[in-house]
Amino acid sequence: MPETKVLINLSNRHMHLSREDVEALFGPGHQLTKLKDLLQPGQFACEELVTIKGPKGSIANVRILGPERKETQCEILSSDVFRLGVPTCPPRESGKLDGSTSFVIEGSKGSVKKDKGLIIAKRHVHFDPASAEAFGVKDNELVDLRVDGERGAVFLNVICRVNSAYALECHLDFDEGNAVGIGSGSYGHVVRR
Amino acid sequence: MPETKVLINLSNRHMHLSREDVEALFGPGHQLTKLKDLLQPGQFACEELVTIKGPKGSIANVRILGPERKETQCEILSSDVFRLGVPTCPPRESGKLDGSTSFVIEGSKGSVKKDKGLIIAKRHVHFDPASAEAFGVKDNELVDLRVDGERGAVFLNVICRVNSAYALECHLDFDEGNAVGIGSGSYGHVVRR
Repeated sequence: MPETKVLINLSNRHMHLSREDVEALFGPGHQLTKLKDLLQPGQFACEELVTIKGPKGSIANVRILGPERKETQCEILSSDVFRLGVPTCPPRESGKLDGSTSFVIEGSKGSVKKDKGLIIAKRHVHFDPASAEAFGVKDNELVDLRVDGERGAVFLNVICRVNSAYALECHLDFDEGNAVGIGSGSYGHVVRR
Repeated sequence: MPETKVLINLSNRHMHLSREDVEALFGPGHQLTKLKDLLQPGQFACEELVTIKGPKGSIANVRILGPERKETQCEILSSDVFRLGVPTCPPRESGKLDGSTSFVIEGSKGSVKKDKGLIIAKRHVHFDPASAEAFGVKDNELVDLRVDGERGAVFLNVICRVNSAYALECHLDFDEGNAVGIGSGSYGHVVRR
């Protein structure tokens, strides 16, 4: 029988920044400061925080995650869409930003207007290749994720991402965790179709 | 084939008050003031708002729903548990308050400390008897509720409530709606077990 049990950690709204935007927001030559390592190898939460702004509101204290990326993106919660007053915000895989939403970022030393980059992260499971084999899943395969319990649910259309740089971990966001009454460090089951 | 399609409306945190607590919070003889009718016959949102308090925080502008009930209860979101700092808050059917959480209510004319009554509402579907027959469900039956779409999910353990005073309607809360990216007025499908 293939493995099914997977660790779930919950993501709050957060931001990834390009080198150019790190400098625009925090000053020329600025380097992101590691606050703590995340479970995915090489990924870390930073001390740096920004404010994000939409047409009708702003949200302060949005955490930067490092390291820097090629393109800036901000992953928000469905519940943030109304607060910011953005007309829409598509569910997207990380890094797939075409047609995503415009927004403004304010850092301690400057602000940047982005034409795109505001997304709701698609639910996903990170697999290292050995785990992917044990679970019987392939990169980009869509599976379902069952969370048991009194407030349980089966989340549909969860994308599997397989890469030797990854550790086995499912990422849901705070809205999804709250909907089933779980916190980070819970477990779910991958259901293949 | 039985019917499956059901209207979903989302509940924000809200409160139902006993006569005694209406008077304690808004003054002797006070009557709740209807703001607008809800879909369930005889139920209405009130102009009155209260603040609820837990050990570590408070939440203002919590809407009262009428009419008065035998016992005061406050239905909060999973995301409110941390804000209030209450140690736990059980998922409960409306009116089943034994062992639920203690909290404080502040109205315009006074405040009340409740030993119980703070709950997270269990997902539920209201059925009039004819609809229950068309869907093939009985009072207190547990079903699942499928919400389609890119961020779809199947919510497990949704309780069916059948009563001639009810209209056909599924109640999820804001956390659950946000998790699947829907608003009030969406549709789901009842899945019998």
